[in-house]
Amino acid sequence: MSQKITTKEQVLSLIDSYDYFLFDCDGVLWLGDHLLPHVPETLDLLKEKNKTVIFVTNNSTKSRDDYLGKFKKLGIDGITKDEVFGSSYASAVYIDKILKLPKDKKVWVLGEEGIEKELKELGYTTIGGSDPSLVQHGVTFDPDHPLLVNLDEDVGAVLAGLTLNLNYLKLSITMQYLLKDNKSLPFIATNIDSTFPSKGKLLIGAGSIIETVAFASGRQPDAVCGKPNQSMMNSIKADNPGLQTNPKRGLMIGDRLNTDMKFGRDGGLDTLLVLTGIETEANVHSQAKEVAPTFYADKLGDLYELSK
Amino acid sequence: MSQKITTKEQVLSLIDSYDYFLFDCDGVLWLGDHLLPHVPETLDLLKEKNKTVIFVTNNSTKSRDDYLGKFKKLGIDGITKDEVFGSSYASAVYIDKILKLPKDKKVWVLGEEGIEKELKELGYTTIGGSDPSLVQHGVTFDPDHPLLVNLDEDVGAVLAGLTLNLNYLKLSITMQYLLKDNKSLPFIATNIDSTFPSKGKLLIGAGSIIETVAFASGRQPDAVCGKPNQSMMNSIKADNPGLQTNPKRGLMIGDRLNTDMKFGRDGGLDTLLVLTGIETEANVHSQAKEVAPTFYADKLGDLYELSK
Repeated sequence: MSQKITTKEQVLSLIDSYDYFLFDCDGVLWLGDHLLPHVPETLDLLKEKNKTVIFVTNNSTKSRDDYLGKFKKLGIDGITKDEVFGSSYASAVYIDKILKLPKDKKVWVLGEEGIEKELKELGYTTIGGSDPSLVQHGVTFDPDHPLLVNLDEDVGAVLAGLTLNLNYLKLSITMQYLLKDNKSLPFIATNIDSTFPSKGKLLIGAGSIIETVAFASGRQPDAVCGKPNQSMMNSIKADNPGLQTNPKRGLMIGDRLNTDMKFGRDGGLDTLLVLTGIETEANVHSQAKEVAPTFYADKLGDLYELSK
Repeated sequence: MSQKITTKEQVLSLIDSYDYFLFDCDGVLWLGDHLLPHVPETLDLLKEKNKTVIFVTNNSTKSRDDYLGKFKKLGIDGITKDEVFGSSYASAVYIDKILKLPKDKKVWVLGEEGIEKELKELGYTTIGGSDPSLVQHGVTFDPDHPLLVNLDEDVGAVLAGLTLNLNYLKLSITMQYLLKDNKSLPFIATNIDSTFPSKGKLLIGAGSIIETVAFASGRQPDAVCGKPNQSMMNSIKADNPGLQTNPKRGLMIGDRLNTDMKFGRDGGLDTLLVLTGIETEANVHSQAKEVAPTFYADKLGDLYELSK
């Protein structure tokens, strides 16, 4: 049975019980461009008590540097780059550390600049992505586009994530690389969320776009780097040995049962669901005991408000 | 065991054995904009012998009228509208005759003009499709587009097919209609081919685009109107009672085992695979006996060449 956080005593006990606080961002800290109540105060409270805070997001359109800009813009100060883990960063680390793709190989990107920036930071050259020539004719498909006609022999991996600047050309070239060399190029997905919430609607998520090229090529991604996949958790633990040794000193805070809560649980952490995103209190109560979050709260800012 | 057509005797016997000749178009009559050898002569030969010819295509970007134009442009004369069955026409007939959607309801279209024209001929109003406002910002997503913000309450069905003028806005609006009213609007697919061949490449097919909105909405199409689905065959039979009564007097000619040959076989017709499209002779020989085509030939024009 999940415990709802409603008293000062609960909050103080909760803060005492954990050293590592992992946060999903959208739906927890903010909704789109709207900061949720008492989020900076809650983060300050945790930092005053020397807690480690880590921000974990599946949004691959932003790099870690882009995220620092967003934190600052919304009035959350003092966040550092090593506190942010995005699926674009996790994917770049996967390609570097797990695939061990040589640095003279290129990565074909179906996605936006966040992915490109993180790959570049690790020394890779990207192709595709935000290349303006791919959208020079807008939505009109050019079957003779040089990037479609002449595949680049130096491409050593395909990385696909969310792109709102989608067209048929980008999908078609991605498919050619997935079919190339007898389907042998590694196929990496930043995340496979089917949807994401925006302005009260559900929009098409990275997973749904990836599904197009997966269906067309007859391949599923060889690796998925976002939550709830544990490759992201393993990167976080590698940077935080105390969490590695004792995951029960970590609390994963998020707004989605099937990604955030599963991510924390699979990593051996306790979990806190906030109801400012996609889930309702009824959803919490309908969870089987073994997958129910450890705690839930109406909003993250309750930790600050109740602590006073 | 499939019989390969290589002699005059076989051709004459084959022509004698059937009254109805059903043809797939791309890969059989032409490749893209390139007419295959001796196709007009083969069609003339069949018509001289008073055979019924019927053209069956999954390409939903064209209407039947558009197809007549293509036949003429490539030098195939004398084809009439009632000889052409496209998946856009089959989908419109399905919405009219099977769904019995009232004519004051609109159809949301993810697709091109072929679909719109066929629906309009049957008296329906369409929304979406080739509406220029959907691509006015090209590939840049506009989350405040009026067609996304204000769903049309008169929409009574969603019809999705191939569109090369794809963008995120079109996919996102389609998804809203699929989720609308507790996912109750009928969801029709023109066809679910994952790919199609173009200039020596495989490109993204209708089925792969439909997979995006299917995955995002958690719904699969309620009906698929293209080959190998039999709703298209049933429309053809309804117009050709002799084929209805005795399907073994019909021969389905195509270039794909999993769509064309299955379509004919499931309808009780005999089948002829031509090797000018996507399949090889090795593919024919690897087929289990119960799904192997009745005949195969290097190309359709062999019927004319061998008959001389």
